[in-house]
Amino acid sequence: MQIPVVRNILEANDRIAEELRKRFAVQHILVLNLISSPGSGKTSTLERTLTDLKDEFKMAVIEGDLTTDNDARRVAATGAQAVQINTDGACHLDSGMVLDALASINTDGLDILFVENVGNLVCPAEFTVGEDHKVALLSVAEGDDKPEKYPLLFAEAAVMLLNKVDLLPYVDFDLDKATRHARALNKDIAVFPMSCRTKEGLPAWYDWLRAAVAAKKAKMRPVTD
Amino acid sequence: MQIPVVRNILEANDRIAEELRKRFAVQHILVLNLISSPGSGKTSTLERTLTDLKDEFKMAVIEGDLTTDNDARRVAATGAQAVQINTDGACHLDSGMVLDALASINTDGLDILFVENVGNLVCPAEFTVGEDHKVALLSVAEGDDKPEKYPLLFAEAAVMLLNKVDLLPYVDFDLDKATRHARALNKDIAVFPMSCRTKEGLPAWYDWLRAAVAAKKAKMRPVTD
Repeated sequence: MQIPVVRNILEANDRIAEELRKRFAVQHILVLNLISSPGSGKTSTLERTLTDLKDEFKMAVIEGDLTTDNDARRVAATGAQAVQINTDGACHLDSGMVLDALASINTDGLDILFVENVGNLVCPAEFTVGEDHKVALLSVAEGDDKPEKYPLLFAEAAVMLLNKVDLLPYVDFDLDKATRHARALNKDIAVFPMSCRTKEGLPAWYDWLRAAVAAKKAKMRPVTD
Repeated sequence: MQIPVVRNILEANDRIAEELRKRFAVQHILVLNLISSPGSGKTSTLERTLTDLKDEFKMAVIEGDLTTDNDARRVAATGAQAVQINTDGACHLDSGMVLDALASINTDGLDILFVENVGNLVCPAEFTVGEDHKVALLSVAEGDDKPEKYPLLFAEAAVMLLNKVDLLPYVDFDLDKATRHARALNKDIAVFPMSCRTKEGLPAWYDWLRAAVAAKKAKMRPVTD
């Protein structure tokens, strides 16, 4: 009973995601789906990134939360376009929600669209929203066993941002172990230890973003796609 | 289409949970459903509690995880009975899984059954597993905005354990703000700042447990219920 229903939901999600993907390809917009536990630092990472790269790229953010527009207000304070989706209890964004939110974003000349998913290490990994890449965040305060215990996200993500490394002296977190477990799931995952508080490690993440934007723009697809 | 399906799943879950509740009432077993983000310290809190109270109470643990039996092995090392449920990707435990796991636990004379849910601040709050109380954990590294942003759990929980207070000097976390937001949702919630690392604050949590066990045993229900 249950499985066919879930499958239909996933298929409907994939159909809309495919339409979004075509649109983003034509406009050469890099779309990143940020996924992590609550409190890993998704919004803080966006605040830093939107501020530090504002002269290089035109960026917008779709924020997903159960309730409140706190995060959209935080990223909008950097000057970026921001739209808040409230899922009303749903544990992840889906492609239909992103399609709706896009109506409130001016995508002309946009280089990067960040989608900050609901704080949840499980369900958001199952639903594509038309992104080029998933970006997994993990705070070192959460423990180095998370890639092993929540494998789907780390198997699918192009990047793992290991945030809050300023807390490393005060917690038991083995960077090598977390990296090893993530790479066992996904040998190509890029791993960037960083801290939004001290700003250490951010330049490597920014270089990855620059390369990803360049790669997206290099894929010249006809506007009539 | 979707809503009736979800409703049927919830109703089926509630029916089994009600059966579990009757069984636990007859046996006077206090059942606590531990819910938090990944890495807030559910397993560490159990390790401490099972060790420190082993001479007072007979306790058992049902561990829920997507994959791995790491957590069951950690709590079993304290000498307590432990059973691991692997949800194979499902984002929360349900009452049917707990019913199945109970077949592997000797409940004779048991005082407390802890159910450690999948690390997820959203979905586990929606599915009762026959517990007396939900216990919410929140690590101070996650940020003081979590009760406001993930309200259902904090509205339903009898206790909020604010773990990792040893990190307070290194993070922006306002204990009063988190407590105020939780109490706005749930005026009766008991709030215990604590640290599994330094053991500070644990005695207050243990006193709450003692009172809850006593209250459960005081509800004398006939064995023929």
